[in-house]
Amino acid sequence: RRCGFPEVIFGAGKTPEEVVAIGKVLLEKNGVLLVTRANEEQHRALSASFPTAKWHARARSLTVELEPWPKSEGVVGVICAGTSDLPVADEAAVTLEIFGNKVDRITDVGVAGVHRLIAARDRLEACSVLIVAAGMEGALPSAVAGLVSKPVIAVPTSVGYGASFGGLAALLGMLNSCGSGVTVVNIDNGFGAAYAAAQITRLLPAKGGS
Amino acid sequence: RRCGFPEVIFGAGKTPEEVVAIGKVLLEKNGVLLVTRANEEQHRALSASFPTAKWHARARSLTVELEPWPKSEGVVGVICAGTSDLPVADEAAVTLEIFGNKVDRITDVGVAGVHRLIAARDRLEACSVLIVAAGMEGALPSAVAGLVSKPVIAVPTSVGYGASFGGLAALLGMLNSCGSGVTVVNIDNGFGAAYAAAQITRLLPAKGGS
Amino acid sequence: RRCGFPEVIFGAGKTPEEVVAIGKVLLEKNGVLLVTRANEEQHRALSASFPTAKWHARARSLTVELEPWPKSEGVVGVICAGTSDLPVADEAAVTLEIFGNKVDRITDVGVAGVHRLIAARDRLEACSVLIVAAGMEGALPSAVAGLVSKPVIAVPTSVGYGASFGGLAALLGMLNSCGSGVTVVNIDNGFGAAYAAAQITRLLPAKGGS
Amino acid sequence: RRCGFPEVIFGAGKTPEEVVAIGKVLLEKNGVLLVTRANEEQHRALSASFPTAKWHARARSLTVELEPWPKSEGVVGVICAGTSDLPVADEAAVTLEIFGNKVDRITDVGVAGVHRLIAARDRLEACSVLIVAAGMEGALPSAVAGLVSKPVIAVPTSVGYGASFGGLAALLGMLNSCGSGVTVVNIDNGFGAAYAAAQITRLLPAKGGS
Amino acid sequence: RRCGFPEVIFGAGKTPEEVVAIGKVLLEKNGVLLVTRANEEQHRALSASFPTAKWHARARSLTVELEPWPKSEGVVGVICAGTSDLPVADEAAVTLEIFGNKVDRITDVGVAGVHRLIAARDRLEACSVLIVAAGMEGALPSAVAGLVSKPVIAVPTSVGYGASFGGLAALLGMLNSCGSGVTVVNIDNGFGAAYAAAQITRLLPAKGGS
Amino acid sequence: RRCGFPEVIFGAGKTPEEVVAIGKVLLEKNGVLLVTRANEEQHRALSASFPTAKWHARARSLTVELEPWPKSEGVVGVICAGTSDLPVADEAAVTLEIFGNKVDRITDVGVAGVHRLIAARDRLEACSVLIVAAGMEGALPSAVAGLVSKPVIAVPTSVGYGASFGGLAALLGMLNSCGSGVTVVNIDNGFGAAYAAAQITRLLPAKGGS
Amino acid sequence: RRCGFPEVIFGAGKTPEEVVAIGKVLLEKNGVLLVTRANEEQHRALSASFPTAKWHARARSLTVELEPWPKSEGVVGVICAGTSDLPVADEAAVTLEIFGNKVDRITDVGVAGVHRLIAARDRLEACSVLIVAAGMEGALPSAVAGLVSKPVIAVPTSVGYGASFGGLAALLGMLNSCGSGVTVVNIDNGFGAAYAAAQITRLLPAKGGS
Amino acid sequence: RRCGFPEVIFGAGKTPEEVVAIGKVLLEKNGVLLVTRANEEQHRALSASFPTAKWHARARSLTVELEPWPKSEGVVGVICAGTSDLPVADEAAVTLEIFGNKVDRITDVGVAGVHRLIAARDRLEACSVLIVAAGMEGALPSAVAGLVSKPVIAVPTSVGYGASFGGLAALLGMLNSCGSGVTVVNIDNGFGAAYAAAQITRLLPAKGGS
Ligand SMILES: Nc1ncnc2c1ncn2[C@@H]1O[C@H](COP(=O)(O)O)[C@@H](O)[C@H]1O
Ligand SMILES: Nc1ncnc2c1ncn2[C@@H]1O[C@H](COP(=O)(O)O)[C@@H](O)[C@H]1O
Ligand SMILES: Nc1ncnc2c1ncn2[C@@H]1O[C@H](COP(=O)(O)O)[C@@H](O)[C@H]1O
Ligand SMILES: Nc1ncnc2c1ncn2[C@@H]1O[C@H](COP(=O)(O)O)[C@@H](O)[C@H]1O
Ligand SMILES: [Mg+2]
Ligand SMILES: [Mg+2]
Ligand SMILES: [Mg+2]
Ligand SMILES: [Mg+2]
Ligand SMILES: [Mg+2]
Ligand SMILES: [Mg+2]
Ligand SMILES: [Mg+2]
Ligand SMILES: [Mg+2]
Repeated sequence: RRCGFPEVIFGAGKTPEEVVAIGKVLLEKNGVLLVTRANEEQHRALSASFPTAKWHARARSLTVELEPWPKSEGVVGVICAGTSDLPVADEAAVTLEIFGNKVDRITDVGVAGVHRLIAARDRLEACSVLIVAAGMEGALPSAVAGLVSKPVIAVPTSVGYGASFGGLAALLGMLNSCGSGVTVVNIDNGFGAAYAAAQITRLLPAKGGS
Repeated sequence: RRCGFPEVIFGAGKTPEEVVAIGKVLLEKNGVLLVTRANEEQHRALSASFPTAKWHARARSLTVELEPWPKSEGVVGVICAGTSDLPVADEAAVTLEIFGNKVDRITDVGVAGVHRLIAARDRLEACSVLIVAAGMEGALPSAVAGLVSKPVIAVPTSVGYGASFGGLAALLGMLNSCGSGVTVVNIDNGFGAAYAAAQITRLLPAKGGS
Repeated sequence: RRCGFPEVIFGAGKTPEEVVAIGKVLLEKNGVLLVTRANEEQHRALSASFPTAKWHARARSLTVELEPWPKSEGVVGVICAGTSDLPVADEAAVTLEIFGNKVDRITDVGVAGVHRLIAARDRLEACSVLIVAAGMEGALPSAVAGLVSKPVIAVPTSVGYGASFGGLAALLGMLNSCGSGVTVVNIDNGFGAAYAAAQITRLLPAKGGS
Repeated sequence: RRCGFPEVIFGAGKTPEEVVAIGKVLLEKNGVLLVTRANEEQHRALSASFPTAKWHARARSLTVELEPWPKSEGVVGVICAGTSDLPVADEAAVTLEIFGNKVDRITDVGVAGVHRLIAARDRLEACSVLIVAAGMEGALPSAVAGLVSKPVIAVPTSVGYGASFGGLAALLGMLNSCGSGVTVVNIDNGFGAAYAAAQITRLLPAKGGS
Repeated sequence: RRCGFPEVIFGAGKTPEEVVAIGKVLLEKNGVLLVTRANEEQHRALSASFPTAKWHARARSLTVELEPWPKSEGVVGVICAGTSDLPVADEAAVTLEIFGNKVDRITDVGVAGVHRLIAARDRLEACSVLIVAAGMEGALPSAVAGLVSKPVIAVPTSVGYGASFGGLAALLGMLNSCGSGVTVVNIDNGFGAAYAAAQITRLLPAKGGS
Repeated sequence: RRCGFPEVIFGAGKTPEEVVAIGKVLLEKNGVLLVTRANEEQHRALSASFPTAKWHARARSLTVELEPWPKSEGVVGVICAGTSDLPVADEAAVTLEIFGNKVDRITDVGVAGVHRLIAARDRLEACSVLIVAAGMEGALPSAVAGLVSKPVIAVPTSVGYGASFGGLAALLGMLNSCGSGVTVVNIDNGFGAAYAAAQITRLLPAKGGS
Repeated sequence: RRCGFPEVIFGAGKTPEEVVAIGKVLLEKNGVLLVTRANEEQHRALSASFPTAKWHARARSLTVELEPWPKSEGVVGVICAGTSDLPVADEAAVTLEIFGNKVDRITDVGVAGVHRLIAARDRLEACSVLIVAAGMEGALPSAVAGLVSKPVIAVPTSVGYGASFGGLAALLGMLNSCGSGVTVVNIDNGFGAAYAAAQITRLLPAKGGS
Repeated sequence: RRCGFPEVIFGAGKTPEEVVAIGKVLLEKNGVLLVTRANEEQHRALSASFPTAKWHARARSLTVELEPWPKSEGVVGVICAGTSDLPVADEAAVTLEIFGNKVDRITDVGVAGVHRLIAARDRLEACSVLIVAAGMEGALPSAVAGLVSKPVIAVPTSVGYGASFGGLAALLGMLNSCGSGVTVVNIDNGFGAAYAAAQITRLLPAKGGS
C-alpha cells in the first residue's frame, strides 16, 4: 500500500479474462477493486468469480468491495453543469467512494445560469475539496473557485463539437483560470481528479483523535 | 458611404506621411477620421494639419471629428474584467463614439468575482448590445450572456501567458460559449466588435420618428 | 423567459425518453419546443405525445409549436454557397422560425462565382441581419459584408477535407475577415448564429407602434 | 478575506505608480502584499512608501509583510531538477511563505539521475503537499508521484527550445502523467501552484487544537 | 543553367562579404544576379564592385543585370489587395523581371470591395499567369480564380494579427480555395511564386516562331 | 464555359439521384462529365441513363464522355512513389484525360531510392508540367523539381500514420520545398492539381497553328 | 541487399493477393519476409503458398523465414512499461529477430515505479542498444537513458486519451528528453526503431574474428 | 563517468561566473569541458582560469581539453545542405571531437541537387554513423538513408520562414522519413545527435584488440 491507495485497472482494451486475472490478484492484496473504462462483458466475467461485483453503467466502471478501504474525513464535492458531463463526474464519484470518501454530488449548475451556482455556495464551502467537470468552454471551475475557499480540481471533458477540439478548449480555459487555486487533470480523467482529491482528504486527521 | 460607416485607417506599419495623406482624403469624404493601431508620431504629424486630432493613448487610436457622424439610438455596453484588457476595450469605445454611439463602460467585473457582475445586471440589460473583452480563459462573455437578454459580442484578448497561447485559449472558450447568443471577433479586435455593434444600433429607428 | 427565448434541447446523446421528458416540461412552460442535433427515433417518440411534432430531416431538428412564439420584425437572411452547407443553414432557419423570425433563404452564391452574389445584393440589403454559412476556405461572409451594410454572422462549417481540418480553416478565415462587421460562432453552430440574429431582430420595435 | 488568502498583484505591464496605489489599498486591508511578475523599478517605488518591501530577484516578486498572515500547519515541498526552473520554483516559494506556509526546497533532483531522487524520498514524504516544477519533457512530477503518497502539483516551465514549444511539451507530459494524484497548473505559474498548495495546508487543523 | 533560371542568393543571415563573394561567382556564370531578403548594407557592399546594382527597398531585394536574361512571352499579373501585402508582391515582381518576364501590377482589389475586382477582369484575363498575394483571411485568390481562366498562384502573407497566426489562416484558406486551379506557395514566398510563374511563361513559344 | 473547363461534381455526400440530376444538366451543357469522390452506387444510377458511364475504381471517380473536350498540347506527368498514393494520382490522371490532356504516369520513384528517379529524368523533362503526389514526409516533389526545369505541382496525400497527422507533415514539407518552382494544393486534392496543370497546357498553342 | 536489410511489406491497405504477389518476389530475393501492419486474412493467403508463414497476433506482423538472415552480434533490449504498449514493442521484437538479432524483452518497468527499473539496470546495461516504447507522457526513455550508457531509441505510442493527442504528448516528451543519447522515431513505429537498432548491431564485428 | 561521457554545460541563461564555477568542478572530474549555447563573455571569463579554452564561434560552443577523452573507433559523418544549417552541424562536430570521435564533414549536398549527394556516396558509406542536419522541408536524411546502409541520426533545424514553423516542418518530415533507419532528435539539437552517435561508436571495439 505504498502510495496510500489500491492499484486500479484501466479496463480499456483489456479482455474479460485479463481483467479477471489481474482483478483476483489485486483483490487478494487490497480487499477492494476498481476497474475504470470497463464494459459489461468484463462485468459478467468478473461477476462469475465475485458475485458482489457492481456495474456503474454511466461511469463505465466496475467495483468489488470485499473489505472496504478505510474511511477518510471530510466530503468531496463533485460538480458539473449538464447531463453530458455526468459520465466523467460519475467516474470521479465511484473512485472516491471505493477509496473511502464521502461524496456530495451537485449537478446542473453552470456559468450560463450563475444564480443556481450562488444558491449552492454554502453546500460547496462545506466540502473539503471540489472536483468540477466541464466541457465546451470549461468556465465552471473558475466560477466555483471564485465563490468558495476550498481547493478546486478541474476536469475538462471532451463534450462539445467544432472548436471544442475534443476537450482542448475546456482544458486551455481551465489552465488559464483566473480564479486562483484551480489545478487541472487530463481531459475526461475523472479518476485522476478523484485520486488527487482522496490524497487531500487523507491528510485530514480522523475526528475521533490523532 | 456604401456600408454605413466611414472607412478607417489601420495604422500599424504605416508612416506618418501615409497616415496624413490617406487621412486627408478620408476626412474630406467623411468629416470624421479614425486611425487604429496608431502611434504618437502619427499623431504629431496629423495634428500639424488637423489641430483637433485627438490621441487616445491606451486605445492606441487617433480621431479627428470635423463633422460628427450621425448619432445612433441605444447604448453599447463595453465590459471587461481587469486593467490588462482595457486597451482592447478602449479601442472598441473610441470606435463606437466616432461612429455615433453612446457607450456605457463597465470595468472590473469578472467570473472569479461573480457578485460584482450580478450587481451590474440592470445596467447591462439597459444596453442594446454588449461588447465583452476578456483574456486568459475568456469566460466573461458566457457569464454576461447568461445574465442578460441582449446580443453579446465577445473579444478575446492576448492578455495572459503560457497556455493562453496569445489569446487562443480565450478565443476557443468564447466560441464554445454555452450561453447562447454570443458571437466572436478576432483576438484583440476591439475595432471589429465595435463595428458590428454599431451596425446593430444603426437598425434602431430614431426615437423621434421612424 | 429570462433571456427572451425558449430553452432548447441539444439532442445529441440523449435517449428518446429523455427528449420526451424534458420536452414536456419545456412545452408546458414555453408553448414551443426545438430539439437540435436530433434523430428520427426521437421524433417518433415525441410524436406519440405531440402529434404535430415536425421532423426537419436535413436540419436534423425537431419542432413542436403549440402556441407560437411572438413574431419579431425584420427578416433574417440565411445564405450559403453550396448544398454541403445546407444542414447548417437549415438548423439556423428552423431555429429562427421557431423563435418568431421571418427568414429569406439564399443558396448557391459563392466567392468563386461572384456575379450571382452581386445579383442578390438588393435582396441581401433588405434583410436586417445576415447569417452566412461556409466551409472549406470560408470566404463568403467577407464578400457578403463587403456588399451590404447589415450585420453579418458567420458560421464556419466542417465541410471539406485535408487542410480544412474539420472547419478550422473556415473558422480562421472568418475571424480574419477583412470586411468589417463580421462576427463568428462555433463550427457548424447554425443554432447559435440564429440565436444571436434573433436577439438582434428582437431589438426592432414592432411596426404597428412601440 | 472571502477566499482565505490576500489578493495579489500581477505586476506585468503595471506602472510603478499603479503598483504602489493598488499595493497601499491591499496592505491596509490585508497587512501583507505580494506582487508577482514584478520588476526592480516597481520595487524602488514601493520601497519609498514601505521601507520593508523585499525584492526577490530570481522569483521576480515583491513582498511587504506588515502583519504576517496566520501560519498554516504542515510543510510544502518545492522541487525542481535544474537551475533553469528556479525562477518558477522561487515564485512558488515566495507565495507560500507570504501565505503562512513552511517550505522545504529540494533542487537538482531529476529523472535522468533517479538515484538522487530516491535518496530524497523520506524528506519528500514528510511534506503535506509537493509542488514540482519542470521544463523540457516535464517527467519529474510523475517520478515524484510514484515515490511518495502526497498530493503532487505539477508546474510545467517554459524552459527548453525547439520541440518544447514554450512549455507545451512539459504541460502535455504532466497532464498525461501515469503517476496518479498529479494535478497541473499553467506553464510557469508558480504562483497558482502555491495558491492551491496553501489551500490544502489550510485544511490541516492547528496542532495545538482544532 | 540546368533548371532554366539563374541561381539566386537568399540574403537573410548572410554577411555583405558573403553576398559579394557568391554574387561575383553567380554574375560571372549567369550575367544577372538576384538577392532576396537582402538589406542596404549588402547593397552598399555589392555596389562597390557592381555600380549598377539596384536596391528595391520595399521588396528587400537586390539586382544586378550585366547581360539580361532571355525574355519570355506573355505577361504575369501580380495582384494584391492592400498596401501591407506590397513587399511580398514586390519580391515576386522583381524576381519576374530579372527572369525576363513582363509584369502587370494590380493593387488595391480586395474581396471586401468586389466591384473593383470585377472592373479589372479583362486586364486579369489578358495575363498568362496570375500571382495573387493576400494576408488575413486570404480569400482574394479564390475570387480571382472564379473570374478568370488563367492559372492562379496564391501567396499567403504574414500580414494580420491574432488568429491570423503569422499567415496560417491565409495559407489554410488558399489551400481550401473552392476556385479550381489555385496552387499555393509558402507564407511570404513571393520569390517562389514568381519562379513557378516564370516556368510557365517559359513554356510559351516565342511569338516570332518556335 | 467561362473558366475554360467543364463544371465537375464533388460526389461525396450526394445521393445517386442528386448525381444523376446534376449530371444530366452538366452533360447537356458540356458533353462530358466528371464526378470525383464518387461511389459505385452513384455509378449504377448514372449508367441507367448513360450506358457509357465509366467507373474508375481506384480513383473513386466517374466519367461520361459524349462529346470529348478539345485536346490540349503537351503531356502532363503524374508521378508518385508508392502504391498507397495511387488513388490520388489516379484522380489527377482521370481529371486530366477528361479535360483533354495526354498523361504520362510514372509510379514507384521515391526519395529513398534516388537512382530510379534519376533514370526517369528525360521522361520527366519531356512533360510540360509535372504533378507529384506523396504522403509521409512528402519529399518527392523537391527531388523532382531539382532534376527538371518544368513546373511541379505537389499534392500531399493523407497516407501515413502517427506524426504524419493526416497529411500535414507532407503538406508542410512541400510548402518548404527548397527546390524552386514547386506549388502546392490541398491534401489528397488530385483533382485540383490536374485542374491547375490543365490550365497550363491550355496556354500552349496548338501545334498545327495558333 | 543494398542497405543491409531485406525489403519489408507495409501490409496496411494491401489486399491478400497483393501481399502474396510482392511476398513471393521478396522471398525469392531475400529468403526471409516480414509484413508489418498485417491482418489474419493476409496470413491465410500467404500460408497457402508458404506453409511456414507465422502470424504474430499482437505485433500484427507476418514472417516467413526460408533461409534465415545472417546473425548479428550483441543483444537489443526492448522495453516497455505496460501491457498497452506491447503491440508496438512486439513489432520491434519481430523485426529484430527476422533481421538476425537477439532480443531481451523487459516489460512492466515504468517511471511511476522507479524501483523495478533500477532493479533491471544490469540487464539493461548488458544490451548493445535499447528500444524503449511508451505512451501517455512518454517519460520512460529518459529514465532508462539516465541509468545506462547504451544508445536509447525511443518509440512514442498512441496509447492514452485526451491530452495525449494520439501520441503527440509522448513524442514531444521524448524529443525533449533531458537524458542525453535518446533518439526518436515516429509514433507507433516499432519497425523503424528495430531497423535503426539492427543497423547499430550490424556495426559490431563478429565475435569469432573481424 | 556513469554514462560513458563527461557532463556538459548548457550555457544559455548562465552567467560567466556560473559557467566558470561549474566548469572548474567538471574539469577536475573529467579533464575535458564542453559548454554549448555559450557566448563570448563566458569564453573570456573561462579563459582567465583556463588559457587553452577554445571558442567555436559558429557552433556557439566552448571547449577546454586538459586531458583528452579516450578516442573511439570509426568516423562520424556530419552532413548538411546549406550554409544556414552550419551552426547546428558545427555543434555536433565540436561535441563529437571532445568526446573522442573522428568527424568527416560534408556540406552543400541537398535534395534539390541530388547529383552532388550521389557523388558523395562512398565517403558517406565509409562512416560508421551519419548525422544529417536540415531545415525547411528536412528531406535530406531520407535521401542519405536511401543511399547508404549506416544508421542516420537526423537533426531538424529552425532554419526557414513561414510554414517552416520554427523547425516543425523539418521535424515532422524526418519523423515520417520513408527511408528506414532514420532516428530523430530535437530541433537544433546538434549536441544530442552527437551524443547518440558517440554512444554508437563507443560500441566498436578498439582496432588493436578488445
Ligand atoms: N484594428 C483593426 N483591426 C482589424 N481591421 C481593422 C482595424 N482597423 C481598421 N481595420 C480595417 O482595415 C481597413 C483599412 O486597412 P488599410 O487600408 O490597411 O488602412 C479598414 O477599412 C478596416 O476595415
Ligand atoms: N446545436 C446547438 N449547438 C450549440 N448549443 C446548443 C445547440 N442546441 C442547443 N444548444 C444549447 O444547449 C442547451 C441545452 O443543452 P442540454 O441541457 O444538454 O440539452 C440549450 O439551452 C442551448 O443553449
Ligand atoms: N503569476 C501569476 N500568474 C497567474 N495569476 C496571477 C499571478 N499573480 C497574480 N495572479 C492573479 O492575478 C490577480 C490580480 O490580477 P490584477 O488585477 O491584474 O493584478 C490575483 O488576484 C491573482 O489571482
Ligand atoms: N525569398 C526566398 N524564399 C525561398 N527560397 C529562396 C528565396 N530566395 C532564394 N531562394 C532559394 O534559395 C537558394 C539559395 O539559397 P542559399 O544557398 O542559402 O543562398 C536559391 O537557389 C533559391 O532556390
Ligand atoms: Mg476560491
Ligand atoms: Mg443572454
Ligand atoms: Mg458590410
Ligand atoms: Mg504518489
Ligand atoms: Mg479560374
Ligand atoms: Mg526544377
Ligand atoms: Mg545514458
Ligand atoms: Mg539506409
